[in-house]
Amino acid sequence: MNAITSAPAERLVRVPLGERAYDILIGPGLIARAGAEIATRLKGRKAAVITDENVAPIYLDALTASLKAAGIQSSSLVLPAGEKTKSFEHLMTVCDAVLTARIERNDAVIALGGGVIGDLSGFAAGIVRRGVRFVQVPTSLLSQVDSSVGGKTGINTHHGKNLVGVFHQPDLVLADTDVLNTLSQREFRAGYAEVAKYGLIDKPDFFAWLEANWQDVFSGGAARIEAIAASCQAKSDVVVADERENGPRALLNLGHTFGHALEAATAYDSRRLVHGEGVAIGMVLAHEFSSRLNLASPDDAKRVDAHLKTVGLPTRMGDIPGELPPAEVLMDAIAQDKKVKSGQLTFILTRGIGQSFVADDVPSSEVLSFLKEKHPQ
Amino acid sequence: MNAITSAPAERLVRVPLGERAYDILIGPGLIARAGAEIATRLKGRKAAVITDENVAPIYLDALTASLKAAGIQSSSLVLPAGEKTKSFEHLMTVCDAVLTARIERNDAVIALGGGVIGDLSGFAAGIVRRGVRFVQVPTSLLSQVDSSVGGKTGINTHHGKNLVGVFHQPDLVLADTDVLNTLSQREFRAGYAEVAKYGLIDKPDFFAWLEANWQDVFSGGAARIEAIAASCQAKSDVVVADERENGPRALLNLGHTFGHALEAATAYDSRRLVHGEGVAIGMVLAHEFSSRLNLASPDDAKRVDAHLKTVGLPTRMGDIPGELPPAEVLMDAIAQDKKVKSGQLTFILTRGIGQSFVADDVPSSEVLSFLKEKHPQ
Repeated sequence: MNAITSAPAERLVRVPLGERAYDILIGPGLIARAGAEIATRLKGRKAAVITDENVAPIYLDALTASLKAAGIQSSSLVLPAGEKTKSFEHLMTVCDAVLTARIERNDAVIALGGGVIGDLSGFAAGIVRRGVRFVQVPTSLLSQVDSSVGGKTGINTHHGKNLVGVFHQPDLVLADTDVLNTLSQREFRAGYAEVAKYGLIDKPDFFAWLEANWQDVFSGGAARIEAIAASCQAKSDVVVADERENGPRALLNLGHTFGHALEAATAYDSRRLVHGEGVAIGMVLAHEFSSRLNLASPDDAKRVDAHLKTVGLPTRMGDIPGELPPAEVLMDAIAQDKKVKSGQLTFILTRGIGQSFVADDVPSSEVLSFLKEKHPQ
Repeated sequence: MNAITSAPAERLVRVPLGERAYDILIGPGLIARAGAEIATRLKGRKAAVITDENVAPIYLDALTASLKAAGIQSSSLVLPAGEKTKSFEHLMTVCDAVLTARIERNDAVIALGGGVIGDLSGFAAGIVRRGVRFVQVPTSLLSQVDSSVGGKTGINTHHGKNLVGVFHQPDLVLADTDVLNTLSQREFRAGYAEVAKYGLIDKPDFFAWLEANWQDVFSGGAARIEAIAASCQAKSDVVVADERENGPRALLNLGHTFGHALEAATAYDSRRLVHGEGVAIGMVLAHEFSSRLNLASPDDAKRVDAHLKTVGLPTRMGDIPGELPPAEVLMDAIAQDKKVKSGQLTFILTRGIGQSFVADDVPSSEVLSFLKEKHPQ
């Protein structure tokens, strides 16, 4: 864990995707330096900033001033906050704003916000003029360690989440760790679930480091920067191995199949469950299900459960406030998930901490009886 | 011109784009064989056919039957014919139809129609599930020799044409030459302008062959198939050299800068001017403008004018029915064209037949005085 023991104020993770390679900068004060960092990397001198009404009052002026100081002319569009903004309607609004700003191929769309703003703006950046430059300035822990890295963009339709989108890699990601101080504890914890996920996928040492250092990660400072950098590096490794999600990239969905089903079962009501919380419960379920299939030791599932519980995350279906639909309904949601290929159930299972793998022939009868057993009602 | 002198009943052009490589089949009876050709190349056994109300009554049943015979389950969506269908609204409709048909990544969207249907369906195929398989069954000469090959997809917005879209290569193009028999002479001629363009870009022998053989191309048979195959090969060569249009692919816009301005000036009213006619006039103007800049001989411009006039295409602004706006308005349309980079005027100019090149520093004053000179009113 050399990457973790050193403790500089700022970290750089390079995502080596050939001509689509890009830098992720992680550290304090990056919004104030955004203009300079963009100006050294991009040819264009115009930018369209897309943000939401929660983030704009706190950070938009600082970003705009930073761009102006670097000679970059910018416009801005402030959208409603929340998952509903990831729609065709708002995609049109963003494309129109980008075209009105006369953004050309070497100019940039800048996403200032969390995953919703990043996914929507990245999609628009990928389709206006068949692709313009794209800069992510993620303002949540979840987006800093997950959605800002890897180039998946998209919107939701009534058929499901993220079913329409493109792969469009950013040209730069600026993860300003100062902004995390304005997140609620609940939001921070939800992002932390994805940090822990990288350890559980294939980095047992990182998971052990998190077990030992999670309090420092939550309180800020060098450990937090290192945890984010390690997460971005882990995601980068997976993305580089499989940019367009044909194979190993599916590992990033550890905990997500169960998690998505729970999000759907709670109608994406963030008062009951947010994405990271669903992933936390999903990861515990994935370990328990693997144990039930005699793939992993039950002790590993207990260890995952214990750590996530310690940091304050929900780990059981019963932790979700309100009633859940019956196991059969959860099963239907799983079967309709996009990770079904030609009717086969694909699951991320594990042989233990940091030993996850893609299983594409999981019998749905096993999943259903497991869900019935775990169902709180 | 070996490729031209042989005369088989069917031709295959392979577009060698690495993992995105694909075949273009050109010949009679391909709609009847579509199912078999698709089944041998694609893993999926589902297809969503997108077509328009002009094409559907003639070819949809035959295509559907062919798919069924090959074990491919298909659904179909029939859209209004015409350029207005290339809109965000119809893009949503197509995405919804594709998702309703439960098309997964290895299944196909099939575009059965001309350029409008191809551009719109290809865009939807590029964004549903971040990319599903795509098959083009072009039913106009223009789409067989131009828009079906190369992966450019898109829609129009009030800011301009094709300003929103993706690069999404087809997996197969089936150019059934039988369908050309149902085109009007005017439509066929408009497509022929793009055929001639490939000679003018960098194939002087092909242009000379067309001057000698155009009547056979118009009457059908082997010469027509060879002309289409040579055009697809020419486009393939350019696309392979520059898939994402950063450099030499711009040569495909020979005649298009003037042509687009004339299309805009006639409000895209197909009664006055269709795309291929605008390109025909634009190519003559590009040769005359090159001659005025002392780059090419005036004899070359005369030769282009003579050939296009012989086949029945308009070659002069004065050939367009109705009044045109003044030269200054045409100039504004050119300046607003998407091929403007960082304020510089980019033009495709030529040193003679088959010797075109990209010039990115053309003074707009020269263009304006040329347009004034050529303006019919």
